Amino acid sequence: MLNILVTNDDGIDAPGIVALAHALRSVGKVTVVAPDRQQSAVGHALTVSRPLRATTIRRDGEFFGFAVDGTPADCVKLALSMLLDERPDIVVSGINHGANTSINIMYSGTVSAATEGMMLGVPSMAVSIDSLDYHTDCAAAAEVAAEIASTMLTLGLPADTLLNVNVPALAKEHLKGIRITRQGNSGWEDSYERRKDPMGREYFWLSGKYCVRDTDHSTDEGAIKAGYVSVTPVRYRLTNEEVLGVLAAAIERM
Amino acid sequence: MLNILVTNDDGIDAPGIVALAHALRSVGKVTVVAPDRQQSAVGHALTVSRPLRATTIRRDGEFFGFAVDGTPADCVKLALSMLLDERPDIVVSGINHGANTSINIMYSGTVSAATEGMMLGVPSMAVSIDSLDYHTDCAAAAEVAAEIASTMLTLGLPADTLLNVNVPALAKEHLKGIRITRQGNSGWEDSYERRKDPMGREYFWLSGKYCVRDTDHSTDEGAIKAGYVSVTPVRYRLTNEEVLGVLAAAIERM
Repeated sequence: MLNILVTNDDGIDAPGIVALAHALRSVGKVTVVAPDRQQSAVGHALTVSRPLRATTIRRDGEFFGFAVDGTPADCVKLALSMLLDERPDIVVSGINHGANTSINIMYSGTVSAATEGMMLGVPSMAVSIDSLDYHTDCAAAAEVAAEIASTMLTLGLPADTLLNVNVPALAKEHLKGIRITRQGNSGWEDSYERRKDPMGREYFWLSGKYCVRDTDHSTDEGAIKAGYVSVTPVRYRLTNEEVLGVLAAAIERM
Repeated sequence: MLNILVTNDDGIDAPGIVALAHALRSVGKVTVVAPDRQQSAVGHALTVSRPLRATTIRRDGEFFGFAVDGTPADCVKLALSMLLDERPDIVVSGINHGANTSINIMYSGTVSAATEGMMLGVPSMAVSIDSLDYHTDCAAAAEVAAEIASTMLTLGLPADTLLNVNVPALAKEHLKGIRITRQGNSGWEDSYERRKDPMGREYFWLSGKYCVRDTDHSTDEGAIKAGYVSVTPVRYRLTNEEVLGVLAAAIERM
């Protein structure tokens, strides 16, 4: 029996994680360890300056998992160190309400939880649905995620690579299939709204416009916009090998 | 005259950012926009669910910069969108109290600020000193950082690459030189202390041990431990191109 750790960044009560946990029960034994509240855009934040608490959560009269007052990455670390009886065979993070493609991978708490799992040596996967609406049905996305999780475990991924899965918000019969994709180049045009509070003091609120620059189906953003499930192998090898020589020469001349 | 944006994750009052701002005044016009408090290990978090405020900070009777009640990445976005009169020619984040090498790049607010600058199209650099002690003299590290910043601007980096600089906590005459390095493989062995609060309720506090696995001077961690300033070109190209074919074949068989 496979042990599956499920987490997310929308919080343990979000419909996406409930659907995901449900679908993954066909693959193995599921334990949910997730933030006790919405943690979007936290990136790979860890909680170090205060302690964490874990609360047992029940759903439909049964044990569902642990709610942690921390970030998605905290949840994975705490689960592996303290909360789980057995080491998981796989970490699945999601289903995030909103796609995590292109530059959003950098900000995503959902992806960071999978990254943390991978860094702790567990095959890991992030799953997002391309809709911010909490009422969007996640059943098809959850089913596809369970299939991809099984395939990934059978295949075996390199130890330094996780899968970032994005699913269009469509009924299963309308999904066009699965595409293996690259991280795209879509990005944000930042803007802040300048407002005044009731005391007349100024504050700023991040808004911004997402600029889709990827139409090619071989990119994450392009694939989901065309109706395909996007699966991107994500690896954190951050050294730009190509400029090592040029930089070394420049330092020599300093 | 160059415009230089300086930020950090230790907060606008930390000795490291004061030393860095001072040293960079020899290179150009410095504006500081930094968190109003310690923000370590926040990674690339953004504040989206609440507004941000910016407060003018004076030091020694002069305008020093803006304190923002957000993360390092927030500071860079808000500075470029709202606070700066002119677009900066360079973003320098630091000096962080504590090295940001190997896996710590993933968690680092200092590096994430530089990453945000780079993603917004500004040449960017993160600087850290290998000491957690706030009393460590940062003057030598600041001076080296200013020299490297000048060199980087003259040389020109690829648009998708930032520099991650780590400096040993040594007097300038004891620094052995500068090495261009790769991100190392050192990592954390996680552990949590299980404690009880005054009401008898359980909580967990992240401790963990840093395991240095890099001794080679061509790695960031290995270089600083040997007394060299480490300069790593960091790039976020997250797609693992090597497994695209294998994954596509596996999906075909699903």
